[in-house]
Amino acid sequence: MSTAIRVLVIHGPNLNLLGSREPEIYGTTTLAEINSTLEEAAVNRGAEVSAFQSNHEGALVDHLQQEAPQAQGILINPGGLTHTSVALRDALVGTDRPVVEVHCSNIFSREEFRHHSYVSGIAVGVVCGFGPRSYTMGLEALLSHLSDSRG
Amino acid sequence: MSTAIRVLVIHGPNLNLLGSREPEIYGTTTLAEINSTLEEAAVNRGAEVSAFQSNHEGALVDHLQQEAPQAQGILINPGGLTHTSVALRDALVGTDRPVVEVHCSNIFSREEFRHHSYVSGIAVGVVCGFGPRSYTMGLEALLSHLSDSRG
Amino acid sequence: MSTAIRVLVIHGPNLNLLGSREPEIYGTTTLAEINSTLEEAAVNRGAEVSAFQSNHEGALVDHLQQEAPQAQGILINPGGLTHTSVALRDALVGTDRPVVEVHCSNIFSREEFRHHSYVSGIAVGVVCGFGPRSYTMGLEALLSHLSDSRG
Amino acid sequence: MSTAIRVLVIHGPNLNLLGSREPEIYGTTTLAEINSTLEEAAVNRGAEVSAFQSNHEGALVDHLQQEAPQAQGILINPGGLTHTSVALRDALVGTDRPVVEVHCSNIFSREEFRHHSYVSGIAVGVVCGFGPRSYTMGLEALLSHLSDSRG
Amino acid sequence: MSTAIRVLVIHGPNLNLLGSREPEIYGTTTLAEINSTLEEAAVNRGAEVSAFQSNHEGALVDHLQQEAPQAQGILINPGGLTHTSVALRDALVGTDRPVVEVHCSNIFSREEFRHHSYVSGIAVGVVCGFGPRSYTMGLEALLSHLSDSRG
Amino acid sequence: MSTAIRVLVIHGPNLNLLGSREPEIYGTTTLAEINSTLEEAAVNRGAEVSAFQSNHEGALVDHLQQEAPQAQGILINPGGLTHTSVALRDALVGTDRPVVEVHCSNIFSREEFRHHSYVSGIAVGVVCGFGPRSYTMGLEALLSHLSDSRG
Amino acid sequence: MSTAIRVLVIHGPNLNLLGSREPEIYGTTTLAEINSTLEEAAVNRGAEVSAFQSNHEGALVDHLQQEAPQAQGILINPGGLTHTSVALRDALVGTDRPVVEVHCSNIFSREEFRHHSYVSGIAVGVVCGFGPRSYTMGLEALLSHLSDSRG
Amino acid sequence: MSTAIRVLVIHGPNLNLLGSREPEIYGTTTLAEINSTLEEAAVNRGAEVSAFQSNHEGALVDHLQQEAPQAQGILINPGGLTHTSVALRDALVGTDRPVVEVHCSNIFSREEFRHHSYVSGIAVGVVCGFGPRSYTMGLEALLSHLSDSRG
Amino acid sequence: MSTAIRVLVIHGPNLNLLGSREPEIYGTTTLAEINSTLEEAAVNRGAEVSAFQSNHEGALVDHLQQEAPQAQGILINPGGLTHTSVALRDALVGTDRPVVEVHCSNIFSREEFRHHSYVSGIAVGVVCGFGPRSYTMGLEALLSHLSDSRG
Amino acid sequence: MSTAIRVLVIHGPNLNLLGSREPEIYGTTTLAEINSTLEEAAVNRGAEVSAFQSNHEGALVDHLQQEAPQAQGILINPGGLTHTSVALRDALVGTDRPVVEVHCSNIFSREEFRHHSYVSGIAVGVVCGFGPRSYTMGLEALLSHLSDSRG
Amino acid sequence: MSTAIRVLVIHGPNLNLLGSREPEIYGTTTLAEINSTLEEAAVNRGAEVSAFQSNHEGALVDHLQQEAPQAQGILINPGGLTHTSVALRDALVGTDRPVVEVHCSNIFSREEFRHHSYVSGIAVGVVCGFGPRSYTMGLEALLSHLSDSRG
Amino acid sequence: MSTAIRVLVIHGPNLNLLGSREPEIYGTTTLAEINSTLEEAAVNRGAEVSAFQSNHEGALVDHLQQEAPQAQGILINPGGLTHTSVALRDALVGTDRPVVEVHCSNIFSREEFRHHSYVSGIAVGVVCGFGPRSYTMGLEALLSHLSDSRG
Repeated sequence: MSTAIRVLVIHGPNLNLLGSREPEIYGTTTLAEINSTLEEAAVNRGAEVSAFQSNHEGALVDHLQQEAPQAQGILINPGGLTHTSVALRDALVGTDRPVVEVHCSNIFSREEFRHHSYVSGIAVGVVCGFGPRSYTMGLEALLSHLSDSRG
Repeated sequence: MSTAIRVLVIHGPNLNLLGSREPEIYGTTTLAEINSTLEEAAVNRGAEVSAFQSNHEGALVDHLQQEAPQAQGILINPGGLTHTSVALRDALVGTDRPVVEVHCSNIFSREEFRHHSYVSGIAVGVVCGFGPRSYTMGLEALLSHLSDSRG
Repeated sequence: MSTAIRVLVIHGPNLNLLGSREPEIYGTTTLAEINSTLEEAAVNRGAEVSAFQSNHEGALVDHLQQEAPQAQGILINPGGLTHTSVALRDALVGTDRPVVEVHCSNIFSREEFRHHSYVSGIAVGVVCGFGPRSYTMGLEALLSHLSDSRG
Repeated sequence: MSTAIRVLVIHGPNLNLLGSREPEIYGTTTLAEINSTLEEAAVNRGAEVSAFQSNHEGALVDHLQQEAPQAQGILINPGGLTHTSVALRDALVGTDRPVVEVHCSNIFSREEFRHHSYVSGIAVGVVCGFGPRSYTMGLEALLSHLSDSRG
Repeated sequence: MSTAIRVLVIHGPNLNLLGSREPEIYGTTTLAEINSTLEEAAVNRGAEVSAFQSNHEGALVDHLQQEAPQAQGILINPGGLTHTSVALRDALVGTDRPVVEVHCSNIFSREEFRHHSYVSGIAVGVVCGFGPRSYTMGLEALLSHLSDSRG
Repeated sequence: MSTAIRVLVIHGPNLNLLGSREPEIYGTTTLAEINSTLEEAAVNRGAEVSAFQSNHEGALVDHLQQEAPQAQGILINPGGLTHTSVALRDALVGTDRPVVEVHCSNIFSREEFRHHSYVSGIAVGVVCGFGPRSYTMGLEALLSHLSDSRG
Repeated sequence: MSTAIRVLVIHGPNLNLLGSREPEIYGTTTLAEINSTLEEAAVNRGAEVSAFQSNHEGALVDHLQQEAPQAQGILINPGGLTHTSVALRDALVGTDRPVVEVHCSNIFSREEFRHHSYVSGIAVGVVCGFGPRSYTMGLEALLSHLSDSRG
Repeated sequence: MSTAIRVLVIHGPNLNLLGSREPEIYGTTTLAEINSTLEEAAVNRGAEVSAFQSNHEGALVDHLQQEAPQAQGILINPGGLTHTSVALRDALVGTDRPVVEVHCSNIFSREEFRHHSYVSGIAVGVVCGFGPRSYTMGLEALLSHLSDSRG
Repeated sequence: MSTAIRVLVIHGPNLNLLGSREPEIYGTTTLAEINSTLEEAAVNRGAEVSAFQSNHEGALVDHLQQEAPQAQGILINPGGLTHTSVALRDALVGTDRPVVEVHCSNIFSREEFRHHSYVSGIAVGVVCGFGPRSYTMGLEALLSHLSDSRG
Repeated sequence: MSTAIRVLVIHGPNLNLLGSREPEIYGTTTLAEINSTLEEAAVNRGAEVSAFQSNHEGALVDHLQQEAPQAQGILINPGGLTHTSVALRDALVGTDRPVVEVHCSNIFSREEFRHHSYVSGIAVGVVCGFGPRSYTMGLEALLSHLSDSRG
Repeated sequence: MSTAIRVLVIHGPNLNLLGSREPEIYGTTTLAEINSTLEEAAVNRGAEVSAFQSNHEGALVDHLQQEAPQAQGILINPGGLTHTSVALRDALVGTDRPVVEVHCSNIFSREEFRHHSYVSGIAVGVVCGFGPRSYTMGLEALLSHLSDSRG
Repeated sequence: MSTAIRVLVIHGPNLNLLGSREPEIYGTTTLAEINSTLEEAAVNRGAEVSAFQSNHEGALVDHLQQEAPQAQGILINPGGLTHTSVALRDALVGTDRPVVEVHCSNIFSREEFRHHSYVSGIAVGVVCGFGPRSYTMGLEALLSHLSDSRG
């Protein structure tokens, strides 16, 4: 229904390969499976998700600009752009929507350059290290955050 | 029952004041309420939690040493020790148990010195910014992690 | 007329939202209005502008490569790419045209990471902090610079 | 009288040895003498002090949590914890009381690592370098600050 | 007329030599010529400027303190003090007037130590790299800023 | 023949302008000439190359994801993305193919920010400074590396 | 009487505006009032003060050189020179007199560049954050320090 | 006999688990065994040791304050406090006794944050990397140092 | 023949052990084999090489001074001196001959201190990571560079 | 005679106290004596010196601007401004005269902040550590440099 | 006997002057005396030592390469090369023998640049600060380490 | 005569090529000419010099150890070792003789890594930038220093 809460799910570069790329770090669940799980989890809470993946920073920014007005919150795994993209950060701030940042791997136990995120500072919260569960955890938290605010 | 999965819930300095200290940052839920919620959540999954709070780094280390052998996982919000305690990190590693780190506030949108955690690098994963929900999210993730490993 | 001086006006990521995104920082003038104003200002000086906006670093580079040979100067607000894009810097240098960098906000009174620009070091000059006026100021300066060189 | 202003005086690690430890740096006045002097100074202004020393970060945090609600201000010499304890800083902020930081020695003419204090940033003011007088100066300033606010 | 907008034009150390000192960097226009041009530009907009140059940080601070109350805005090229003077920054803030910072050369394509300005962070905006035009651009922008505020 | 070793040759932003852009740094050989030379060199060793250039980080990542499974190795000149793209690094690692990094110019005798490469750390080896020859050197080395591994 | 202890009171740049400049940071007491208070406080202890303010680093150095031989101690609020003047530090050391450094505001809760003082390292002690009281506290401490040494 | 040289042996956090915690780093000898060996080694040289372990920084400081006056030297493995505790450093200096610092593991071949010790700078010497032998080596060296000084 | 191009091949410390030292990093080819291969490769192009290895920085500098005048180019693997020797850099610059730097291992995927080379900044180009092939690649590139210049 | 080489001798802040200020660092020779010695040394070489000291950065800049056109070289001991004054550096460069920098003390064996000079980078040469002799050495070197250039 | 364990004892630059150079730091025992003591200590444990000192980095590397194959372990005091020589580190690693690093002085209580050692990270352990005893302690520890491994 | 003051003149790596290597930086005077000039200058003051050049750090250290006891002072141009050799610094300190450091070029106007010298901190003074004159200036200053000390 049109009044359902709608969450944009944004996957950054290389996340389309989830399940096959470096499975020892990212696990074997595919992105399609993650999206299905998120959809289901949203439906269970009377919400809906709209998932989008791109390897293009620009496409992610375009998408956020176009779709955020029809959504109430944003769940994002910015992939490698986490550490390098001010444009993505600006786009997220520009949506004026709460943002939850998730990562499958624990970015703090990997290379030094992965310890800093341009997104964390403007997010509601961050979840990392739990594989595909990071996404569902992030979605649940975002939906709860949104219903708190609506209260 | 004795074969239930048991999780140590560890709260660091000042977290006993949750609900009253700086509510604009940490919210109004008390630590007792958080512990109850965690207990309930654990029971729902056939597990149990054992919560402990201390303002003493040493007491937290003592507790981890004594109780970890009877537990399968550790959920910890190290409070201010997050950023300063190698002893706590060493104690956590010494338990040889999976650790999940949680924070009520989003440490990445606060002072620079809160952006580094001695615990994150040795944790399974990190959850921050969702208020008391960070705890339940962390517990669920830890229990799932443990049942994966048991599988 | 074909012998008119032609200036490329380049707008980086998120600038298409000028006027609506974070108006307390960027003001309420839209990008279309800015482009009109620039056009008019150019015409008044017997010049012309060709404006282009993209959220894609690659599209900005493509555009610079294709259009710069037909232009005499470049006016650019690189948006978030200001602080992160060596590719854009290289493309600008590659045009062998004078570059003027502008920003609506004063990047020096914002977050630390906005204080460094990859473009400034290879620009003729920089204008920032005057809202949409930064653009017209930059254009005027660029046109004057070009007519000096032609002299 | 119960309506007298009450100030917590907090002494961090090793300050119990004042008067005997490294007298060339810290002087020969004992902590007991300092506490007496502070008491007297408080009484002269119709106030009272409650002094506490501990070598335990945790005990200092415990004490602040328990005693601050019955006090109007805090005078603290955090000793070595000055430079290392976020937990103590958090506890001080948590009291929601004005804090004055004092040091007997001039921390800025000693080792580099003593030049940064986790407390200074959240204190009303700082006094250092005047030996035991730093305490009485700090107390006077705190009492004046409190009576200003009461005005 | 007394109700005209009045702008203080402040030139820092060595700018009295504009036109003769290092012309390959700073151009050949003299400071007197720049001041005339600014005066004319101001008059054209029904405003007036009052120019002052000194090689003395203290004299610049004195001047700002004495003259700012009779002016509505400040146009400043702090010269070498840009990178070293907190006192000048403090004086500018103390005027409670909008400040525009200008430089003839592009400070970002020169030595590393010229990339940081103590003034930029408290200015409305910055213009650099356009030679004497930086001044007129800055003045126009300041006057526009002032008439916006007056609205 | 289908069993020939196949190498992806990837050219990053602005390399399509090789031969015309900044010839004093990059030389006068065009990208088409380089690709021809590489093709010939590959054929001489019973291998084949498939060249791709884009100014879009995302297009490079897309291409690597799609084409790497049909290739045995990757020869890349990441252009300006060398110093800024974690997404490209991740895509390269994700191919699970040996990578050789090449640069026409000697990045170590240019600006400081060009001295760090996100690719070098995950490459087999690096060649830089020899103009177009860097490519053929890199290709030969990659083919030798591949035939070593095939042994 | 001529044998009274004499203290130089030195006020750096912009402190002549105390009471009117940025009152939310520096309070509403004027410099004249502060000097009167100091004079009175000195007289009460059989001492005298000689106050001097300048916005000129050089004038402060001149004054210290000329007046210090007739004084026994120095009370200084170096204003913005605190963070930038080695010449002032050298002049203070050159007097061979004990120095007490004071600041009205708490420099440690302001901008990062205000956290370092060139004076602190060579001062007897430092007082900051208590508004005009910082001066009287500093004076009392200096007089006590002087009478200790005389003892 | 009461005139024997007495050495305090201090073990910091987590060292009570020596022999079981991370044996691949710390070996399999228990703390009790180490203490026995030290006792024996001391007796062989007509000296005695008094061992103490705590996970509490404060307890270690308390102990040093109380016991050091009855001892002539201190052998310490500060555990994780090595890298974080100024309070412990201060307590050690406060004893006015020679200190020898030991570590079972080679802290220089582990994480970067273990390469700095607050104790080393005030110790007579440091021994690390030899497992439990580090203790006996340190004790022997301390006893020799003490008998040298006694001469 | 005496008019043949002559290349100095310089091997720094520890490279005499190539083939036996840490073969998992440096491979199993000996230095003698590398020199033979280089000789042959040179002869094939009508050139000649003169190889020299030393563990002594000074001997390498001596050799460069004495032999470079009789040679047209220098191929060098500076070994551990890569990261530490300004004297070697100076000697190379002093020869006024083009220098090619090679490394068997990929220095960018090893310890942080190996990421900086004092030689790279003054070399024509750099080859690393291809084992003994790095040498032949470097030699070919140097010979081509030399024949280009002669052209 | 009017065609004699003329050298400006510039003494920065606090150097008027040479001979009395901190004699253990700066020696006991007075500035007047140094100036006499320099005069004599100049005359011996058919040159003349014109000495100027000020504690005011601005006065030094004024003096350089006014007097440099009548001189051929500049000998300067910038005192504390060495480490802090870009304005002085700019004034020196603006004279377009060779500059020799001297210091009585060895600035490299003093505090860290004295190891960097804004003047050294634009000077012909630097002399430090030889007390008053640093001046005569610097003068001789400057005169020789000037006669070389005249040659 | 030929089957005895043989330890190379390596002394770096300036250690031949032990006993006379800076005795307040290094003590009065000569290197010959140290070598004798080590020999004796080795014989007592059925081992033998072979000592070598050189001021030449290259000679130390040569010696390690030639002698290490006939030895089972290496005891080294690298002197000033500790902090600067990657070549020596590489040579030590190249021996594939356990290394123990010793220093007479406590390098951590001296200049900052002595706090980092290129050897420590690849050593079994480190001993410093105990004068000549550091050597015997290191030898004993190395012999024990070797007999453990043989066990 | 045997009682003449004797100065060791030490030239580091590459200085044997003075006069031919990079003459635009180092001038055209040869080392032999410099040594002659120094000899003559010494004789004129009743002193003598003994010059030594080596490209070997170790040989310089050997020479200092052997010759310094027969000399009263050391004049050194450490060449490239200036910036990298702790061993040379230690050898100089070990001589217990006053050291004067000289450089032909102005090391402060060259690459960043040449701005730090390991020798300056332990030298009497430093002379740089005056070509071969730096040596004679340094020698004169050293001789004067020595005759001062002799008194």
